[in-house]
Parts: sequence; C-alpha cells; structure tokens
Amino acid sequence: MSKRQIMSTIEGIRVIGFDADDTLWSNEPYFREAEEKFCDLMEGYLPRHSMQRELFATEIENLKLYGYGIKAFMLSMVETALKTGGDTLPVSVVASIIKIGRTQLELPVILLEGVEEVLKTLHGKYRLVMVTKGDLLDQERKLERSGLAGYFHHIEIVSEKRESDYRKLLRHLDIRPEEFMMVGNSLKSDVLPVLELGCYGVHVPFHTTWEHEQVDVIVTDPKFRQAEHANEILAWL
Amino acid sequence: MSKRQIMSTIEGIRVIGFDADDTLWSNEPYFREAEEKFCDLMEGYLPRHSMQRELFATEIENLKLYGYGIKAFMLSMVETALKTGGDTLPVSVVASIIKIGRTQLELPVILLEGVEEVLKTLHGKYRLVMVTKGDLLDQERKLERSGLAGYFHHIEIVSEKRESDYRKLLRHLDIRPEEFMMVGNSLKSDVLPVLELGCYGVHVPFHTTWEHEQVDVIVTDPKFRQAEHANEILAWL
Repeated sequence: MSKRQIMSTIEGIRVIGFDADDTLWSNEPYFREAEEKFCDLMEGYLPRHSMQRELFATEIENLKLYGYGIKAFMLSMVETALKTGGDTLPVSVVASIIKIGRTQLELPVILLEGVEEVLKTLHGKYRLVMVTKGDLLDQERKLERSGLAGYFHHIEIVSEKRESDYRKLLRHLDIRPEEFMMVGNSLKSDVLPVLELGCYGVHVPFHTTWEHEQVDVIVTDPKFRQAEHANEILAWL
Repeated sequence: MSKRQIMSTIEGIRVIGFDADDTLWSNEPYFREAEEKFCDLMEGYLPRHSMQRELFATEIENLKLYGYGIKAFMLSMVETALKTGGDTLPVSVVASIIKIGRTQLELPVILLEGVEEVLKTLHGKYRLVMVTKGDLLDQERKLERSGLAGYFHHIEIVSEKRESDYRKLLRHLDIRPEEFMMVGNSLKSDVLPVLELGCYGVHVPFHTTWEHEQVDVIVTDPKFRQAEHANEILAWL
C-alpha cells in the first residue's frame, strides 16, 4: 500500500463487488489438493508433472463447454484419466475421481483475514454484491457456511469475467462505471476488465493463483488499488 | 383459455420473467434421448425401466450437491453406471456417457411456438428477464443460439425456484410482487411459488415434463393464467 493510495479517498461508490473464491475464502488450495490426489491415482500412467499438464490442458479446452467450478473440474479429471489410461484404465479410478470431487464440494469454508471486518463495516453504506464465475449452487452453499450471507445484497453469477460481462453487470445493476468498485484476487478477472470500463478495481492477491488466472502487468490506472488484506479498503472509502 | 381470462387485463406489471428450458425452447426431449442412449449402454446390466429408475434416483439424490443442468446429469449418469456395474463396468461406458453429455451441450436450440412473437411485442414495454436454474454458461449459449438474446434485459440464475428464491429475486429487481409476472412450463417451479408471493403466474405446459417437476393441483388464484402458447399472454397485457 503506497502513501499516495492512503491519501486519496474515493467518492461516489454505490456498489462494491467482491469476488468469492480466494478473495472471501480460501479455495485454490482445495483444487491443488484434489489435483494431487488425482495424480496419485494416475501415477502408474504418467509422472506427476506430466499428469498435471494433461489435466490443465483438458481444463482449458473444456472451459468453453463446461465453464468454471467443481463439476467442470470433475468432468475434466474423468476425461483426462480416460484419455491417458485408455481401455486399460481401471473403472475404480473413475469412482475415486468422483469421490475426490464430491468431497471437495463439502469442504469447510475458511475465511480470509480482514474479510468479515470489511463486510461488516461497509454493509448498509454500500450495496455489496458477490460476483463469481463458479457454480451458483456451490457458491451459495459456501456463502451460507461462511456466515457472510447477511452482508450481501445478492450473488451475481457470470460465465466469464471479461469487460463485456462487467458491462452487462453494470447495466443490470443500473449504475455508472464510476459508482462500482470490484475487489478480488485475480488481476486478470477482477481488476483489469473493470478498470477498462472506468470502474474502481482493488487487487488483494492470494498466495496461490490458478495458472489460467496469472498475468504479468504493472497497473498504473488511477482507479486501481492494491491491498494485502481486504480490510485495507476501509481506508479509501 | 377461459372467457374470464380473456376479459381481465393485467395492470402494473414492470418485469416479466420467462423460464428458459421447455418454455422458450425445447429441452426435456433432449434429456429423454440422452437417457435412452444411457439405457442402451447399460442394457447388459438392468432392464431399461429399472435403469431409468436408478438414474432418476441418483439425480434426485444429487440435486442438493450438484444442482440442475447437463454437467450434473453427466455426473449422475457416470455414478449410476458405476453403482450398477461395479468393477465389471467397462471403462469405455464412462467414455460413452461423457460423449452423450458433450453432444447434448451442443444440440440445436428449437424455439417453441409463439415465443418470438411474444418477446418481440413485449420488449421495450416491460423489462424481460430469463429466470433459470440451469447452468449459466449453457443457458447463455442457448440464448445466443436462439436469437432471442436481444429481447432480454438479463439472465437470472437461481439454484432453486422456491418461494424464498423468488423473494430474493424480487428484492434484487427492486420491485413489488404485483409488478412481476412469471411465465413457465412448470407449475411447481415457475407458477405456484410466485403466486404464493402475490405475483402473477402464467403456466404454458410443455408436452414432456421431467418427473421431478410434476405436480397435480388445481390452481384457483386470481393472479394465475393458463396458456397453450406463450403469445396468449399478449391478450392479458
């Protein structure tokens, strides 16, 4: 957090959007654990690193068809196993993959530092919206378990987080770009596209980022903020 | 359509919600076809009727975990096959199931009679919203292919269509119940819960209804309308 950022407070915001996974609660580590278990299952076929490459390739290829979320991940694991193992793949591996996914859908929700404080403080002053590209059902369930549900006006599910998706969101919320601030751990999905539209974008990095979400840029936009923890936003509002 | 219905026009509506599958376009027949193919694959294990029962039981059991949509259906088919076939299930059956699901995700969108006319006429006069509990990505794709996207203000994805979900929706849309009309093929999901809230509900039955959506009731609510085709709504607005 630079000195310049501390000094400039932001006026006119009406709606604040929060990304969910790895912004409100920890999520990516669960995917990494599931991936490890998947590679364990498949270790007779390919070395761990190559297996991970195969899975990632399948996931990216399937994004257009399946979208994001655990069900898509489960199907990609099954497809990668079938592709790698062919007819020699024991069908029990498929059963184990299904089990990995089902377990992942019911893991505990662990809140990230500063999240509850920031939501509690901002609730009532701004309309708080959760903006996510995961499965609605899974995200609703996590929101319930997190104990944060009462702070949010509603959940916005988007199939992607491109500029055009945020444009639709602003239209849907009936607000102008400068009245919207988006907070999230992914520069690529939560920050850069909203800055393009003239909204405010706050980047709160998480220690683990999915390869597909990684970008390497330096952002100089005056509507950009960087925070170590979500509650640092409070200094700017 | 009774005479009484023709005579009473409805005032004060601001937002009209349309269910998507089997209201705007044909969908359930695709699921029935997929189910047939699944039963073909499994015919060495169980007679068709019993296999359908097993699949239905798995789907219902999984609703809470997976929700609705084709990905959930794919996972339920895989799980039913594993449960039925055990270790003797050829892994190629799993591959065939995945193929059934992937094909289903890319089938053509066939509009139902009267749909385009009603949307074209109401567009601009009311805020038209698509309200669906399917996968967002899949529904967005179908909406694009249908050529109807321009008529809708936005898509509302709900994880269920209970009274509480519609209450959230009304809050989200910032409207009173009597300003909302919902149009759909499912009495259980599209009509009864909105009538409970004091909204208008229009039932446009489709020839095939998923067992889970079937209810047997006579509706006497004055805000209820029944239509053979969607464009009959135009007579009431």
